Amino acid sequence: LRQGIAEVIYGAGKTTEQIAGISEAMLKAGQKNILITRLDKEKAEILSQTLPLHYDEMSRIGYLGELPEPDGTGTVLVATGGTSDMPVAEEAALTAEVLGNHVDRLYDVGVAGLHRLLAHLDEIMSAYVIVAVAGMEGALASVIGGLADCPVIAVPTSVGYGASFGGLSALLSMLNSCASGVSVVNIDNGFGAGYLASMINHMGGHK
Amino acid sequence: LRQGIAEVIYGAGKTTEQIAGISEAMLKAGQKNILITRLDKEKAEILSQTLPLHYDEMSRIGYLGELPEPDGTGTVLVATGGTSDMPVAEEAALTAEVLGNHVDRLYDVGVAGLHRLLAHLDEIMSAYVIVAVAGMEGALASVIGGLADCPVIAVPTSVGYGASFGGLSALLSMLNSCASGVSVVNIDNGFGAGYLASMINHMGGHK
Amino acid sequence: LRQGIAEVIYGAGKTTEQIAGISEAMLKAGQKNILITRLDKEKAEILSQTLPLHYDEMSRIGYLGELPEPDGTGTVLVATGGTSDMPVAEEAALTAEVLGNHVDRLYDVGVAGLHRLLAHLDEIMSAYVIVAVAGMEGALASVIGGLADCPVIAVPTSVGYGASFGGLSALLSMLNSCASGVSVVNIDNGFGAGYLASMINHMGGHK
Amino acid sequence: LRQGIAEVIYGAGKTTEQIAGISEAMLKAGQKNILITRLDKEKAEILSQTLPLHYDEMSRIGYLGELPEPDGTGTVLVATGGTSDMPVAEEAALTAEVLGNHVDRLYDVGVAGLHRLLAHLDEIMSAYVIVAVAGMEGALASVIGGLADCPVIAVPTSVGYGASFGGLSALLSMLNSCASGVSVVNIDNGFGAGYLASMINHMGGHK
Amino acid sequence: LRQGIAEVIYGAGKTTEQIAGISEAMLKAGQKNILITRLDKEKAEILSQTLPLHYDEMSRIGYLGELPEPDGTGTVLVATGGTSDMPVAEEAALTAEVLGNHVDRLYDVGVAGLHRLLAHLDEIMSAYVIVAVAGMEGALASVIGGLADCPVIAVPTSVGYGASFGGLSALLSMLNSCASGVSVVNIDNGFGAGYLASMINHMGGHK
Amino acid sequence: LRQGIAEVIYGAGKTTEQIAGISEAMLKAGQKNILITRLDKEKAEILSQTLPLHYDEMSRIGYLGELPEPDGTGTVLVATGGTSDMPVAEEAALTAEVLGNHVDRLYDVGVAGLHRLLAHLDEIMSAYVIVAVAGMEGALASVIGGLADCPVIAVPTSVGYGASFGGLSALLSMLNSCASGVSVVNIDNGFGAGYLASMINHMGGHK
Amino acid sequence: LRQGIAEVIYGAGKTTEQIAGISEAMLKAGQKNILITRLDKEKAEILSQTLPLHYDEMSRIGYLGELPEPDGTGTVLVATGGTSDMPVAEEAALTAEVLGNHVDRLYDVGVAGLHRLLAHLDEIMSAYVIVAVAGMEGALASVIGGLADCPVIAVPTSVGYGASFGGLSALLSMLNSCASGVSVVNIDNGFGAGYLASMINHMGGHK
Amino acid sequence: LRQGIAEVIYGAGKTTEQIAGISEAMLKAGQKNILITRLDKEKAEILSQTLPLHYDEMSRIGYLGELPEPDGTGTVLVATGGTSDMPVAEEAALTAEVLGNHVDRLYDVGVAGLHRLLAHLDEIMSAYVIVAVAGMEGALASVIGGLADCPVIAVPTSVGYGASFGGLSALLSMLNSCASGVSVVNIDNGFGAGYLASMINHMGGHK
Ligand SMILES: Nc1ncnc2c1ncn2[C@@H]1O[C@H](COP(=O)(O)O)[C@@H](O)[C@H]1O
Ligand SMILES: Nc1ncnc2c1ncn2[C@@H]1O[C@H](COP(=O)(O)O)[C@@H](O)[C@H]1O
Ligand SMILES: Nc1ncnc2c1ncn2[C@@H]1O[C@H](COP(=O)(O)O)[C@@H](O)[C@H]1O
Ligand SMILES: Nc1ncnc2c1ncn2[C@@H]1O[C@H](COP(=O)(O)O)[C@@H](O)[C@H]1O
Ligand SMILES: [Mg+2]
Ligand SMILES: [Mg+2]
Ligand SMILES: [Mg+2]
Ligand SMILES: [Mg+2]
Ligand SMILES: [Mg+2]
Ligand SMILES: [Mg+2]
Ligand SMILES: [Mg+2]
Ligand SMILES: [Mg+2]
Repeated sequence: LRQGIAEVIYGAGKTTEQIAGISEAMLKAGQKNILITRLDKEKAEILSQTLPLHYDEMSRIGYLGELPEPDGTGTVLVATGGTSDMPVAEEAALTAEVLGNHVDRLYDVGVAGLHRLLAHLDEIMSAYVIVAVAGMEGALASVIGGLADCPVIAVPTSVGYGASFGGLSALLSMLNSCASGVSVVNIDNGFGAGYLASMINHMGGHK
Repeated sequence: LRQGIAEVIYGAGKTTEQIAGISEAMLKAGQKNILITRLDKEKAEILSQTLPLHYDEMSRIGYLGELPEPDGTGTVLVATGGTSDMPVAEEAALTAEVLGNHVDRLYDVGVAGLHRLLAHLDEIMSAYVIVAVAGMEGALASVIGGLADCPVIAVPTSVGYGASFGGLSALLSMLNSCASGVSVVNIDNGFGAGYLASMINHMGGHK
Repeated sequence: LRQGIAEVIYGAGKTTEQIAGISEAMLKAGQKNILITRLDKEKAEILSQTLPLHYDEMSRIGYLGELPEPDGTGTVLVATGGTSDMPVAEEAALTAEVLGNHVDRLYDVGVAGLHRLLAHLDEIMSAYVIVAVAGMEGALASVIGGLADCPVIAVPTSVGYGASFGGLSALLSMLNSCASGVSVVNIDNGFGAGYLASMINHMGGHK
Repeated sequence: LRQGIAEVIYGAGKTTEQIAGISEAMLKAGQKNILITRLDKEKAEILSQTLPLHYDEMSRIGYLGELPEPDGTGTVLVATGGTSDMPVAEEAALTAEVLGNHVDRLYDVGVAGLHRLLAHLDEIMSAYVIVAVAGMEGALASVIGGLADCPVIAVPTSVGYGASFGGLSALLSMLNSCASGVSVVNIDNGFGAGYLASMINHMGGHK
Repeated sequence: LRQGIAEVIYGAGKTTEQIAGISEAMLKAGQKNILITRLDKEKAEILSQTLPLHYDEMSRIGYLGELPEPDGTGTVLVATGGTSDMPVAEEAALTAEVLGNHVDRLYDVGVAGLHRLLAHLDEIMSAYVIVAVAGMEGALASVIGGLADCPVIAVPTSVGYGASFGGLSALLSMLNSCASGVSVVNIDNGFGAGYLASMINHMGGHK
Repeated sequence: LRQGIAEVIYGAGKTTEQIAGISEAMLKAGQKNILITRLDKEKAEILSQTLPLHYDEMSRIGYLGELPEPDGTGTVLVATGGTSDMPVAEEAALTAEVLGNHVDRLYDVGVAGLHRLLAHLDEIMSAYVIVAVAGMEGALASVIGGLADCPVIAVPTSVGYGASFGGLSALLSMLNSCASGVSVVNIDNGFGAGYLASMINHMGGHK
Repeated sequence: LRQGIAEVIYGAGKTTEQIAGISEAMLKAGQKNILITRLDKEKAEILSQTLPLHYDEMSRIGYLGELPEPDGTGTVLVATGGTSDMPVAEEAALTAEVLGNHVDRLYDVGVAGLHRLLAHLDEIMSAYVIVAVAGMEGALASVIGGLADCPVIAVPTSVGYGASFGGLSALLSMLNSCASGVSVVNIDNGFGAGYLASMINHMGGHK
Repeated sequence: LRQGIAEVIYGAGKTTEQIAGISEAMLKAGQKNILITRLDKEKAEILSQTLPLHYDEMSRIGYLGELPEPDGTGTVLVATGGTSDMPVAEEAALTAEVLGNHVDRLYDVGVAGLHRLLAHLDEIMSAYVIVAVAGMEGALASVIGGLADCPVIAVPTSVGYGASFGGLSALLSMLNSCASGVSVVNIDNGFGAGYLASMINHMGGHK
């Protein structure tokens, strides 16, 4: 697996023509799986006419080729605080799936309703690497980080209003996590979290 | 109980003479309990020579008179995320005690070690009002707010380093709490939280 | 009264289908009063076709069931600095009404016209708990907090322009209030204030 | 009266020698009243040995020459929210006095204790120009601005802690004042407020 | 002249009906000049059908009644750094004119082209009070403040891009002005500056 | 390996007595390696008198017991932009060593002197996990992240002045890294980075 | 070459009529090359009907007259981190070309893919002045600044999301650059960078 | 002239031993002029005992070797707004002198006293490159940038109080300068400005 330069296209701010051109060049070069992030529905529809594109509206992810068989060491768990965090979580989850990981989803388990989180303790304890996605107070990363012994990749989201200041509140909260093993990526950067989770999950090599 | 103007002296930035003067006038006016916050140890020692001052070094609180018998409706629970939050927590706890409340302390139960918090679930569930004191990621308020059905007064602290930005991280986190029944006071404002807790605990009147 | 998880639906970012689904499940489970916050007019109109929804356009609150008889201890007073703060104030007021409180409204009594505020001194003095809603300089919470002896829940609003920075000015102002008994919720969080006011107003139990 | 370049020395960051040099040159040039702001006590003591310096410790203002007879149109009222704002207020008051104004002081009349402010309504109503000095929530400027019909110069102070962020809270609050006739100077800039107050009070000329 | 409460309507966020209602009540009460700020063109057109409204599109100011004869002491000079600052400047200028002031305009004299400013030195020196309107680096207030001996009311504008941060850059710059006699109002608050300028210009009374 | 709760003591804000007490209890409980972070030199000297403490002045890390044989999968590379970042880097490196990792150091290879970095390309390419420590512009994490295929843990430092704003500049820069596989911990949090690096390096188990 | 006052029109916020008027006056005054920045496509189309306008959509630059023969000392190199930075880069490049410079473009050479940058080392080393345009982490300026011996003008862009905060991240990063010879202009200010680059490239005079 | 890596030592945070070691190695390698910035007086005194160090207390610059004959194209003009900006200005000036430039100083010519600046118009017009150093409102860069036709390197300083926020006000102001040819370096970065000024002044080669 090379640095993602070849296989991942950041769709934001690229025209349909640019994306099609890059994709075709990659396919010609023998690339099998191509991940396109931040892809608008309209562009996806146009690309679908000429390319074998799968498109997921919630995460705004498109990919060319079939989802590979998972060949990582363990399971990547993607958890969210609320339902509004799902687009970012799905960006992480689908990224990890396209990169060959088995992914478990645990959505809407925010810390204000701890029982929902604790009801899934076994999934948390058995995950190989966890992506914790949350906006507003962002406490999910700390709580999960305190429970699990594996790396926790925290993704602050811009979900919220008022003093969430576009994700700043969750970002600061996650950076200040008192739990060990927690690190943070950019606000709304589901892709970055999914990619890193996959990298950790494949450090023993692709099976 | 009147607006605290009479009985509470904010010691910060006042000279020993000023504090002594105000206190003596109050005592003469028949006041029995006087609370002095943000009182330096040095000033406390000087005041002790002429006034019946009790002084607590950790909270930097001094009070004149004896601690009253608790006469509120229930128990005020003061919880902290870490040990470093204790000075602020004690400011809240002692304030509440001087104002006639029974206070329970639950310190160092930060969300990164959830079992410590859950081990005290009964204290949380039976409290009448809770003061949640935490720095860094400030997640304690949300977790407690989600567990308890009573008002939770969140106090962000300036404890931490780096991206805690002097308490800003905890403050934003607490303001964004997804748990209902949570409200917030100023960073390090243990007094304000203790005062409000006492107010709520006495709304049925002083017994 | 349980933690609001069951009875309150945060409508922002939920589809009409999702809201209808959750509501119907709640109703089937025997829930009588359901509060839906941040509900767009369009969604409300669709929901009205299949559900007994009352909808208030200003506060963007919908509720299923009839407004209950007020059964709290006293009166919840909701005050605003200006007329533009009314949507947030109504979110607080209606939330409190749906949760069984008698609510008084005192709108447009900002501190720049103190006489209007002072003309209602008796309402302020006789309230059991006060929600103070203000944008821009947010001074209302301090002034009311200084007059009243009951808990004051301050709600900063994003009303204003320039250096109000989306509610930051009012938020900071309210957090720094010199009046005791004042606590703060998130910018524009009328729901949170109304919920907490109701909680305090029902601490002696529902009559 | 020229732009203050000649008669005012900003003492911060200047050595005793520099201040003495500038002062002597001014005196030689016929200047009668020289105002030195932000002057440390130690420097003041050294300067006193060779120059006819009056020094006020609280405001850190020194002046050479005698206080002039007030020759402005009316009275400059300097009000503060708390006692800790007094150094900044005195910088304003003494500046105005040295520049030939009659000054009234109204200290510790913060809005959390509105009765103290209202007890002095006549002084507020009869002032010609008002300097309102306050830290923390800075509401004083709005309340006074709403009561009085004259220009109100608001001075935010760095007094406070936590979310006062070094005066930012009071500054934003004052800039967002809903009362007309209010303008703002830099945090802790008592000099600037006193100077402008004097300018307005002398617009009809020095009597 | 009373506190502007009666004669000025802040149009932002008010419906056409509300504005019409308030206006008619005022007219009935004998008010001759009514100023409506932040009035959208569409609302103005509707109001014109039933009220004798004059409307200025650039400043978004409407007024009822005729412009009064100027009866202030001197001239109010309104200056801007660029042409994009003109809407805010006109809000100040028209406000002052409706309130009975003679107004001079000096637009697009930003400090990057100092000769344009210096070419109008006599207007600057002879003004009775100056409103300095500028975005981006906001240096205009300092330069004019250094030249003139009269009060300078600085209005930062949100004109600019990038690190102007919606007017923050100009605001901070103006607050830090080294020139004496300068005070600041909120970003884009042309009305506040015009009102204060008029107040100062009428301190000797309306002629 | 459990969540570090047992084996790691955060020394900041703890008294020598508290640290000694916790350490002795841990030793008695059979713990062999105890890591104490943020330990002042003075406290370390006192602790050394009764405990078998090794102390490193630069990183302010103390540990009880002997450094274990490295038993992780590969090498942890710790790189810094400048020499001033070394205290934070050593906190990371020593943490990793105490937790059983082979650590390589690559200091002062900031991107302004790219040749120094490129001269060590083989160490970068062969590392199993990299900790990139940098203040000021924080570009090191991006450059290393672009070169290496392994996880890069970025640690912003508070080194710098002016617009580095206490590490904010490096923090934001690292969060915005365009290189995949990069995640970020709190400003100056060398411990957190070293702990996470060790966790990743031991995911195949301790050999 | 005079201060650009005459030859450059800042199109943002100017009407088509205003731009046409200024242009015609300039042409009449003998001006040959006129640069119009921030010109919308719609306005450009209208202007084209009466003026010999060349318009570039990406940079939103229009110019009247023919591109002059380059007469500067050397080559201006414009480099970007990503493709999304191209509009800003083209604003710089076209500005420089209109002002008489030979411009080389080196786009999408961000530091996360260092090999692409290093593949063009000779162009970097032989440039006379370099404009480095980058958003997000803004590391490009430091890396290029470390490689080249000529002045590097860094232009942060608002490209990015989340913690890029509208260009703040890149701005701070560039200001903190450890490489010597780097200076910074406003976020997205391609014009300013191109103008300064041209100024430096013509300091020996126009050939 | 190579990238300054060899000849310049950034003294902040380096021990006397480290500085001495690096210096001796450089001297041995044949280096004649070595510049040491941010050098404390105490360290300078120790270094003087073994090395031929010249030390300037105000700028905290030390250099080894003799000041070279100026061999640049023209004059580097260093200007400041106030006297408090002089340490930063001298860091720039001495850096430029050590690097072989003729330097003119124009101190305390802040824009609040424009006549002082205009009195030196010829020096401004004849400079080859200008370093404009100012704190507080930072308007100096814009005014000079508008007057001069040469590159202006703006250095914001941390001089000021209150809303100067450690140099942020001047920094933003300078970045937003409406004058063309102005670029900005970090707050208090006199060295960076002096280095870049020298680079521009030597682009025709060292004579
Ligand atoms: N306007 C609001 N602002 C903040 N929190 C809210 C609001 N409305 C509802 N909530 C909270 O959101 C919870 C329901 O969230 P959800 O499960 O996403 O519908 C409720 O229990 C409340 O605690
Ligand atoms: N405390 C102060 N804060 C802000 N500006 C001041 C202060 N004291 C004096 N000034 C200004 O500084 C100028 C004198 O500065 P200087 O020439 O450095 O002594 C005066 O004319 C005032 O405009
Ligand atoms: N330098 C540090 N920065 C942040 N967290 C730390 C640091 N050192 C230790 N910790 C965390 O603090 C916990 C111990 O905290 P305490 O119980 O207060 O000693 C450890 O388990 C770590 O997770
Ligand atoms: N894109 C731009 N960003 C910043 N300043 C610009 C830009 N384009 C032109 N300018 C400046 O604006 C001046 C013209 O402004 P104006 O007189 O409003 O057309 C020019 O001389 C330049 O200094
Ligand atoms: Mg963990
Ligand atoms: Mg609760
Ligand atoms: Mg009260
Ligand atoms: Mg008024
Ligand atoms: Mg002046
Ligand atoms: Mg990589
Ligand atoms: Mg270089
Ligand atoms: Mg110029």
